[in-house]
Amino acid sequence: MVYSSENIERLVKVLSSLPSIGRKSAQRLTYHLIKSDPTFIDNFVDALIGLKNNVHLCKICFNYTEDEICPICASEKRKRNIICVVEQPADVLAIEKTNEFNGTYHILHGVMNPLDGISANDIKIRELIQRISNIEEVILALNPSIEGEATSQYIAKLLRPFEIKITRIASGVPIGSSLEFTDELTLSKAIHSRIPF
Amino acid sequence: MVYSSENIERLVKVLSSLPSIGRKSAQRLTYHLIKSDPTFIDNFVDALIGLKNNVHLCKICFNYTEDEICPICASEKRKRNIICVVEQPADVLAIEKTNEFNGTYHILHGVMNPLDGISANDIKIRELIQRISNIEEVILALNPSIEGEATSQYIAKLLRPFEIKITRIASGVPIGSSLEFTDELTLSKAIHSRIPF
Repeated sequence: MVYSSENIERLVKVLSSLPSIGRKSAQRLTYHLIKSDPTFIDNFVDALIGLKNNVHLCKICFNYTEDEICPICASEKRKRNIICVVEQPADVLAIEKTNEFNGTYHILHGVMNPLDGISANDIKIRELIQRISNIEEVILALNPSIEGEATSQYIAKLLRPFEIKITRIASGVPIGSSLEFTDELTLSKAIHSRIPF
Repeated sequence: MVYSSENIERLVKVLSSLPSIGRKSAQRLTYHLIKSDPTFIDNFVDALIGLKNNVHLCKICFNYTEDEICPICASEKRKRNIICVVEQPADVLAIEKTNEFNGTYHILHGVMNPLDGISANDIKIRELIQRISNIEEVILALNPSIEGEATSQYIAKLLRPFEIKITRIASGVPIGSSLEFTDELTLSKAIHSRIPF
């Protein structure tokens, strides 16, 4: 196979090494970029460099931010005595979209996973414990997976001596779905976690 | 919704404006890039700039290339008296992969499409006619769509006075599929284009 351009091949390689982009998609994207306005590529390049140079972890909650402390931790309007613990920065966006939560976050950047060799020391659990003075409630909002569950249990055990309220977000039947098509595990969780009507 | 970083939001916007990448994918890609090795982003940036600065159209066949003339047109091994006409540069890659074709290409960069206001003058048809001296055969390899068919007919009509061989790639039942699941149009084309066994 003859390639007409090394630079095309190079960008195809970079793009196809990204998650969920295969070789064919990378090719289509590259051809799209060649045809696009040169200012679009300039903008793309600036955005990548901006990301690399300016984004780092918030010193308090470990979310991505451009300042030392992220806008949520810095905000006067957020309740600093409630911490919602999540796995990834993307989870913060998901919770913020609900407009339901007015506290602050703590991002673990992963869950404990012995199979992958990820222990409590590899994620931001120690940093959570260090934040715990003057905290009223810790909400555990990890993904309802085996690893998420194990990590939640571990954190809850570490927090128990501090005598703060420890809660978790509810697992159950998603709104809009039907019982018929809900898997047994979710349904049994929903029955187990039933609340007064 | 509180964004923790302008630079994240900016890259998400750029990525989600690309074809087949939605907002969620763009977000996932951006978070992946933050976590990736900084040299990967450097490489990404270099590849984008390299593409923008070095890739342009081959003067002969209008494929993308970095030199004045693309490697296929420049190659001594390719038969210059056979031209395969395709719609897009990506089609050249597809045909090159077969290792079946040893001639040169001509890329139209589109097909005639009156609904979108694309006429014969908007694609590289005139440039094809200008290449036609000393040509033995023109193979039409446009997509088997209505617009591809119309463009093929138009080109064939223009080429007829030159008394060169004009062929087209076969349409028919794809290898590995079954008659049962082949659509009627393809099957009727396959019957119509039957060849001696």
